[in-house]
Amino acid sequence: MTIADRWLLPDGMDEVLPPQASRMEELRRALLDLYHCWGYDQVMPPPVEFLDSLLTGTGTDLDLQTFKLTDQSTGRLMGVSADVTPQVARMDAHSMRHRGPARLCYCTNVLRAKADQPQGGRSPVQVGVELFGHAGLEADLEILRLALTSLKVAGADELHLALGHIGIYRSLVQAAALDSDQERALFAALELKSPGALAEQIEASVSDAALAEMFMALGDLHGGPEVLDAARDAFAGAPAAVAEALAQLRALYRGVLEAHPEVEPYVDLAELRGYQYHTGMMFAAFVPGYGQALAKGGRYDDTGRAFGRARPATGFSMDLKLLATLVQSEPACDGIWAPADGAGVGEAIAALREQGMRVVQALPGQATAPEAHRCSRRLVLTDGHWQAVTL
Amino acid sequence: MTIADRWLLPDGMDEVLPPQASRMEELRRALLDLYHCWGYDQVMPPPVEFLDSLLTGTGTDLDLQTFKLTDQSTGRLMGVSADVTPQVARMDAHSMRHRGPARLCYCTNVLRAKADQPQGGRSPVQVGVELFGHAGLEADLEILRLALTSLKVAGADELHLALGHIGIYRSLVQAAALDSDQERALFAALELKSPGALAEQIEASVSDAALAEMFMALGDLHGGPEVLDAARDAFAGAPAAVAEALAQLRALYRGVLEAHPEVEPYVDLAELRGYQYHTGMMFAAFVPGYGQALAKGGRYDDTGRAFGRARPATGFSMDLKLLATLVQSEPACDGIWAPADGAGVGEAIAALREQGMRVVQALPGQATAPEAHRCSRRLVLTDGHWQAVTL
Repeated sequence: MTIADRWLLPDGMDEVLPPQASRMEELRRALLDLYHCWGYDQVMPPPVEFLDSLLTGTGTDLDLQTFKLTDQSTGRLMGVSADVTPQVARMDAHSMRHRGPARLCYCTNVLRAKADQPQGGRSPVQVGVELFGHAGLEADLEILRLALTSLKVAGADELHLALGHIGIYRSLVQAAALDSDQERALFAALELKSPGALAEQIEASVSDAALAEMFMALGDLHGGPEVLDAARDAFAGAPAAVAEALAQLRALYRGVLEAHPEVEPYVDLAELRGYQYHTGMMFAAFVPGYGQALAKGGRYDDTGRAFGRARPATGFSMDLKLLATLVQSEPACDGIWAPADGAGVGEAIAALREQGMRVVQALPGQATAPEAHRCSRRLVLTDGHWQAVTL
Repeated sequence: MTIADRWLLPDGMDEVLPPQASRMEELRRALLDLYHCWGYDQVMPPPVEFLDSLLTGTGTDLDLQTFKLTDQSTGRLMGVSADVTPQVARMDAHSMRHRGPARLCYCTNVLRAKADQPQGGRSPVQVGVELFGHAGLEADLEILRLALTSLKVAGADELHLALGHIGIYRSLVQAAALDSDQERALFAALELKSPGALAEQIEASVSDAALAEMFMALGDLHGGPEVLDAARDAFAGAPAAVAEALAQLRALYRGVLEAHPEVEPYVDLAELRGYQYHTGMMFAAFVPGYGQALAKGGRYDDTGRAFGRARPATGFSMDLKLLATLVQSEPACDGIWAPADGAGVGEAIAALREQGMRVVQALPGQATAPEAHRCSRRLVLTDGHWQAVTL
């Protein structure tokens, strides 16, 4: 094996070098500080769980994304966390047992057996927040606003928000009494965004003419706020839950505009990504130049039911690795270069470091330039005192 | 399956709840800031690598600790990082290619198929530093001092440092021309710290009487600085590398005492843990009440050879999870409780958060007390202005 071969990394399992790793660290801190200011407490979910608890109630997508491991001590199958959200819901349901609303945040590595996107990463650093215990729109709106604020903090100038609601699709599926195979085929056709495929699936599985028309309309209902009006008309005969979902979307639309007038939401009623565990409003935030959403979230009530407590839940998450590519700031060159030895130099260095200054001490024989170590000053002995002077 | 069973976590794969997760975050920041001040640049190693590169030159211990995964896209075997140190050495050797000394630091999750200690964690957060490209004692001393400073930053009052050097054992093994089976058996006997087992192994594999005596002495050479004098006598006839290693230990001993007079090092010439890739001085730092070392490190030259560059290397690492248990500070109760609605309350909340204050907004119908959310003040409308007043 050649040297180059030996250091090939698996697709999507990347290393992060300086200065990018520092940018990520800086953004991590800015986001966690933001969440702290909004009242969210940090948690660290277990990186590995037994597979049966890890995948309970989360659907097949997550199963396929989860790396499986055998526990040597028990022989049981474990999975490496591929998505922190259902884990945090279990922590809320089982370990924390707060009465009333609980706000939690996290920033942690996850692994994915296959990437979300072609060429995408399989080792994202998932950062996000979850709000449990409140079923109202106020909670959803807080989550939406916090997601947009997060992207601003990360340096996004222009933001696009896609807003949807799984309740519309789900109510229609229920009204049409589709079995799970039919539902899956219809879901795939909607995901494809192909009217032909959609018409074919509706033809095959929806006998009620009015419902068939509504499913067909679903594929077209995306665009500005006028979509909500069009949907009201198209779904006039639909179950009451559809009108309720549309009313929620209208309120969220208004609420987002109020706090972020620069972000005009895009309504997409057929956007069903993440549908595996979502139960209400869903959203994705985009930045021009990125082929994928930078933040994704929505409502996913009752994930904790299997773990002892069904709780309302809403939240969002992002990939810190991706997010930290938004701004390519140059690292500061503000270090102080210190000599390898000299009377009292150790004390002088320690005192500067105590003050939070970066002091890089030369090692005997070191020939590299101070600038290569991001130093703009040099520690020199002047009148018996060690002083930092500009290079 | 009962609810409780479903949420059993695998041994050593734990979740971290508030406020412990915040303590860990705080310590993470303090340590990475410390390393920045000492001139160390942050990197993030890949969490998963192909197994052949991951384990090259690291020995069987790490192999047994490494969870194996199959890469779906290539069918090749991968391993989840169980120890960041050799990964960072490869990054230095292959990806960074600095001339001269390079200082790197990291803080990242790793997974271990089996714990280091009985009841120990299998999901540590490894935090540490590595100094590449300098073979001198100054580099080792910087690492030793930085390890002790790290533990101080983490809140350790009383510190104990065990200091050893793999070069002594290795030179004797070479002089006695032991094969790898004999060497392994001897190593195991030394690890056991059982004179009987050691004598038996020496009897079985070391024919030279002088060398046999030296191996036997090795098991006894632990204690204060007098051990270095005793070793000089015991190893008078040993290869020159042994005297060189003892001279290094003596210099490091002095160097540690100079910077940290409160830490009296304990010399242990038979302490061989981590011997899988170490090549020079080795150390472990202890705090009373902990049954395991809180920081471990040493010199491990040439790990990068298989990846294109043999470089001197020295460093240490710690488990942030364990370290963050040193100080059980109570989280600050300094939040401001804000009402769910009111004219202009949104703007008032945003302004306070902008200033870095924690503002927890009540959700409609929320009955829990502000204190439960670590709030000591409440936002009230007074004379037309929203003001934070003590509860």
